[in-house]
Amino acid sequence: MTAPLIIPMPGNETLARNLCALGAGEFRELDTRAFPDRETYLRFPQAPSGRSVALIATLADPNEKFLPLLFAARTARELGARRVGLVAPYLGYMRQDARFHPGEAVTSRHFASLISADFDWLFTIDPHLHRYRALEEIYTIPARALHAAPLLAAWIGAHAAKPFLIGPDVESEQWVSQIAKACGADYRVLRKARLGDRAVRIAAEDLHIPEGAQPVVIDDVISSGHTMEEAVRLLAIRGQKPLALAVHGVFAENADARIMAAGAAGLVTANTIAHSSNRIDVAPLLAAELAAMA
Amino acid sequence: MTAPLIIPMPGNETLARNLCALGAGEFRELDTRAFPDRETYLRFPQAPSGRSVALIATLADPNEKFLPLLFAARTARELGARRVGLVAPYLGYMRQDARFHPGEAVTSRHFASLISADFDWLFTIDPHLHRYRALEEIYTIPARALHAAPLLAAWIGAHAAKPFLIGPDVESEQWVSQIAKACGADYRVLRKARLGDRAVRIAAEDLHIPEGAQPVVIDDVISSGHTMEEAVRLLAIRGQKPLALAVHGVFAENADARIMAAGAAGLVTANTIAHSSNRIDVAPLLAAELAAMA
Repeated sequence: MTAPLIIPMPGNETLARNLCALGAGEFRELDTRAFPDRETYLRFPQAPSGRSVALIATLADPNEKFLPLLFAARTARELGARRVGLVAPYLGYMRQDARFHPGEAVTSRHFASLISADFDWLFTIDPHLHRYRALEEIYTIPARALHAAPLLAAWIGAHAAKPFLIGPDVESEQWVSQIAKACGADYRVLRKARLGDRAVRIAAEDLHIPEGAQPVVIDDVISSGHTMEEAVRLLAIRGQKPLALAVHGVFAENADARIMAAGAAGLVTANTIAHSSNRIDVAPLLAAELAAMA
Repeated sequence: MTAPLIIPMPGNETLARNLCALGAGEFRELDTRAFPDRETYLRFPQAPSGRSVALIATLADPNEKFLPLLFAARTARELGARRVGLVAPYLGYMRQDARFHPGEAVTSRHFASLISADFDWLFTIDPHLHRYRALEEIYTIPARALHAAPLLAAWIGAHAAKPFLIGPDVESEQWVSQIAKACGADYRVLRKARLGDRAVRIAAEDLHIPEGAQPVVIDDVISSGHTMEEAVRLLAIRGQKPLALAVHGVFAENADARIMAAGAAGLVTANTIAHSSNRIDVAPLLAAELAAMA
């Protein structure tokens, strides 16, 4: 089988090159720009005829990225691509997974249906699976969720002496305990109540950090950042200097600066979304899966 | 037949209310906002069960608007809408209507195919039809192009004494001559060469404006604005004070300010895209068509 063509959408060039350096496929550039009226121009300098194509596109801030991505997928197919897959290190529109109030758009289903119509397969890392247990409940194409937990555990093990992990809510317990076990750390999960898009309350009355331990607050995603910010603040007022660690750093509304200002000793994320806090490279995880999928 | 529900996407509220004031349908609000991570929340406060729905959505800057629009269309249908149509006063992605270089995405076709999959009908005003003669060459749903020329002629007739119309390129001749005839004006078309996304050259060596006439440069769309800017400048250096008039004012990259700075006496557009230069109301044109389509 020929190696897949690895083609980054704008902003995904570094990850695409890392994947190619690991032998996951052959790098191809996409020529794309915005016209003055902000419509997208897009061109494949070399036709992907007969080849399997993997478009690399992280999908934070998805509205802006969606049409160019679909244009690329459809054009690749017109130009003879044998299969067109999507590597979305971060997958958007996973949160609205039910109609909580009458009349609401269940955007996760609509988004999944649109992606499924134009791609042959999808894989992503730690998507927000809450009411859905698997991506394939909403995606009608082969869709795999990879797990960054071992990479997080390895990073913590290598960088924190006597780590003590803190999960921000009870739902994270299984995930946090798995990472704690893998790096030989103790852990606690807090109780979180979400009061709105931008407000959470975290209960931590009885939170005790063992003497000499390095607290590490971990979450799958830092989006508005209020959860991480609040957890860091609760630790900071107890005289701790916690590390804030997450797979995905969306960092809406300057969340990164707010978390540091709340008293974090450092901020660490995986490179599923490009950011200055990226310390954990997911390319090896994606490269292994690419070999199987493409 | 029951009147359609007229539901504006964000930013289209004024036009939607104007349509309802003309009796074109019943106004319904859409509850929509951005989550902190910029994903879209969307809800129909009242289910459109059994009703015909017209979503009002002008499609300048289409990337950002596309997903919310599709979420609204699909949700309306899930909630029982009998038909779901799209009123797009300005229609995006009409420019790349051929593969000019190998490997290019013919975005007009992809966009049309995506819209056609989720709407039952479409109408718009003066779309950019160049290589395509009709919208239905690319849209597979009933798709009508309405014409603002009579509204432009009426505005010119009412506001310019002895107007002299100037079209920026030979392709506009038929359209300009039609407006000139309707308002009893003389006209000229210039010869334009496009040098790039942001550069045009206009030939106007033998341009003569009759004594006492008011030059009015007219175009279907002001996008990057370089065409209008250049035409206005050519007139200004001949001591003229031209009016700049267009159906659609996209005004990319401060085109409005540049056109005024080039020497325009005024800038006038239709309200297909909301802008301070809107003087020509297209609601009557759309209302008449809505009665027929919805």
